[in-house]
Amino acid sequence: MKMGESVEWTLHCATVLAALPDGAVLPASALAEFHDISESYLLKQLRAMTAAGLFASIPGPKGGYRLARQPEAISLLDIVLAVEGDEPAFRCSEIRKCGPTASSPSAYSATCAIHAAMWNAERSWRASLASTSLSEITRRIGRSLSAEVRAKAQVWFTANVRA
Amino acid sequence: MKMGESVEWTLHCATVLAALPDGAVLPASALAEFHDISESYLLKQLRAMTAAGLFASIPGPKGGYRLARQPEAISLLDIVLAVEGDEPAFRCSEIRKCGPTASSPSAYSATCAIHAAMWNAERSWRASLASTSLSEITRRIGRSLSAEVRAKAQVWFTANVRA
Repeated sequence: MKMGESVEWTLHCATVLAALPDGAVLPASALAEFHDISESYLLKQLRAMTAAGLFASIPGPKGGYRLARQPEAISLLDIVLAVEGDEPAFRCSEIRKCGPTASSPSAYSATCAIHAAMWNAERSWRASLASTSLSEITRRIGRSLSAEVRAKAQVWFTANVRA
Repeated sequence: MKMGESVEWTLHCATVLAALPDGAVLPASALAEFHDISESYLLKQLRAMTAAGLFASIPGPKGGYRLARQPEAISLLDIVLAVEGDEPAFRCSEIRKCGPTASSPSAYSATCAIHAAMWNAERSWRASLASTSLSEITRRIGRSLSAEVRAKAQVWFTANVRA
């Protein structure tokens, strides 16, 4: 089981956008540069985040991206599902209905116990991500930043943020 | 995020092996037939389960597979990790250390807050699967089997189980 690397990119981009002053935006090129990742690959994720109502895209030469909601109202689960899709990781194809014991549909009224247990585990995973807001993550990152990183980030934000 | 379909196959195979009498085995061809899946694809998973110490492979013309441990001592997590590998779904590539704020290693002594939160969620998922034993799943399946499926399974087991 593996998440795409773009989940990491998008989560980090969200924390950068959460640090912007009200009304300010960052262009995709700056978000890509900040993380040293490919802008063309990142654009796909930025569009997915905008489609999911998590990022807002402001067009034009002074445009860019900002959060579409307050960071308190965006959970890690919102971001992960926007990038990876909402389907559960375990996809039940109902193989219990195949082979030599295949029976009439009425024989399978109860959910497959394997399917139910796998979904139960995914629910725990989703609940953990849903209970963690982007604002909480940015607070934790803020507390852990060294003076050196903080100073470099301030210079970079001043040069790249669009009001 | 998506698990391979072979996780479903292997979990179902494990429940079939858990239903065997002591000392009995089922050949790979029978396990594949029971679920109407490809034997050659299934063999790869059966080997992974054997390598993980969950299934035992008995060689020879009367050979086949059985559980290597009691079903109480095998968790869903054991099986999922044997098939999918033990790496976390979210792989942190430390992109916080890249780009214009890149700093000396001492600036990153704290674990990345995003990495920590993603691992926390995976821990919840793993804990749920670890707390569900194969014996519990086979009990649940047993309770939900219709008389029709149960009768067909008995005929099939009688024809295929090797003592």
